[in-house]
Amino acid sequence: MADETSGECCHGEQEHGHHGYIGNQAGYLRRLKLIEGQARGLQRMVEEEAYCIDILTQVSAMTKALQAVSLGLLSDHMNHCVVSAAREGDEAADAKIAEAMQAITRLVKS
Amino acid sequence: MADETSGECCHGEQEHGHHGYIGNQAGYLRRLKLIEGQARGLQRMVEEEAYCIDILTQVSAMTKALQAVSLGLLSDHMNHCVVSAAREGDEAADAKIAEAMQAITRLVKS
Amino acid sequence: MADETSGECCHGEQEHGHHGYIGNQAGYLRRLKLIEGQARGLQRMVEEEAYCIDILTQVSAMTKALQAVSLGLLSDHMNHCVVSAAREGDEAADAKIAEAMQAITRLVKS
Amino acid sequence: MADETSGECCHGEQEHGHHGYIGNQAGYLRRLKLIEGQARGLQRMVEEEAYCIDILTQVSAMTKALQAVSLGLLSDHMNHCVVSAAREGDEAADAKIAEAMQAITRLVKS
Repeated sequence: MADETSGECCHGEQEHGHHGYIGNQAGYLRRLKLIEGQARGLQRMVEEEAYCIDILTQVSAMTKALQAVSLGLLSDHMNHCVVSAAREGDEAADAKIAEAMQAITRLVKS
Repeated sequence: MADETSGECCHGEQEHGHHGYIGNQAGYLRRLKLIEGQARGLQRMVEEEAYCIDILTQVSAMTKALQAVSLGLLSDHMNHCVVSAAREGDEAADAKIAEAMQAITRLVKS
Repeated sequence: MADETSGECCHGEQEHGHHGYIGNQAGYLRRLKLIEGQARGLQRMVEEEAYCIDILTQVSAMTKALQAVSLGLLSDHMNHCVVSAAREGDEAADAKIAEAMQAITRLVKS
Repeated sequence: MADETSGECCHGEQEHGHHGYIGNQAGYLRRLKLIEGQARGLQRMVEEEAYCIDILTQVSAMTKALQAVSLGLLSDHMNHCVVSAAREGDEAADAKIAEAMQAITRLVKS
């Protein structure tokens, strides 16, 4: 969980009433619902003893769907929280970019 | 879906009654159930307007869990289907390894 | 190559006389020199018919070194060009972030 | 470095006089030479203060080239050493596949 400081960009944005991704909230919920369905489909495949490679193909499709969600969230975050921190001052900008880089590093390494 | 030919390794293993991963079937089901729960947890975070970076952290954890499932399935597949194809003859070995390499390539690029 | 527009952040920074990474220019050159050495070491291994898995281990080390350079360059870019574009206005911010997201997407998928 | 045991597949192949990749030795040397050239090109870009995003694009291209080398080496390794270990017996097969899975895991995570 982000500590109070890392959440401050959001307080700064409270005037707009939301984080970066909220404009697409319904879209993200729909995509995560589909991903949940993929996780259930994989369980069915394992129960029905599907061919290993076919299961791997579905896991790759699910990983790609998750990756697309990550990149979307990151883009929304940069367009809102990072931009607003940059305008707030050097310290706010440094903190937000350090935090975003940690998330990007996790994404790149996973 | 694998065509009949790619499924043949499995027929060859019918004597053992299963694909490579079946010895761990319950384990894979449990792990996929947890991953399904992670997908639901992400929906809750989006609904509750959690901080973007916290959502990204959870997506990375879920991607890592999926990746571990993939590597497990691949290892089981190699230890059973690939080994049994190698013993069957050069043609069977070539086909199984080409198929496994396609799955590995998708894994590496996703 | 970036077109004139994408290079404009840099013109905007000409007063500082450099891009984001230039403060670390010597460090990046040193790291890329080491990576060049790793590429030569790999050729030696192939010539001397080293064991395949040992070569793969060295390729992974080299890929990790390259990835670290990418993440460093991206961080410097965000701290300089993206922050300065955000302060310039919405249009400049949108363009820089779209461009950075393309680079991040390539990084994540490679 | 592989210990003596992990190199044994190669002794088993000494009749053919080579590891899996040796049939393509010249091809791998040529590709690694190109990759070495890419590392030098990147140094030139940093020296000439090229635009950060253009450097990142070239690093991605170089990473992709390295990844293709890895997948090629792995495929050759599976087609030769893993197949020959599978035919040698269960113990040899287990050891070679465990070793290959470690290399694949490093590839997937890098």
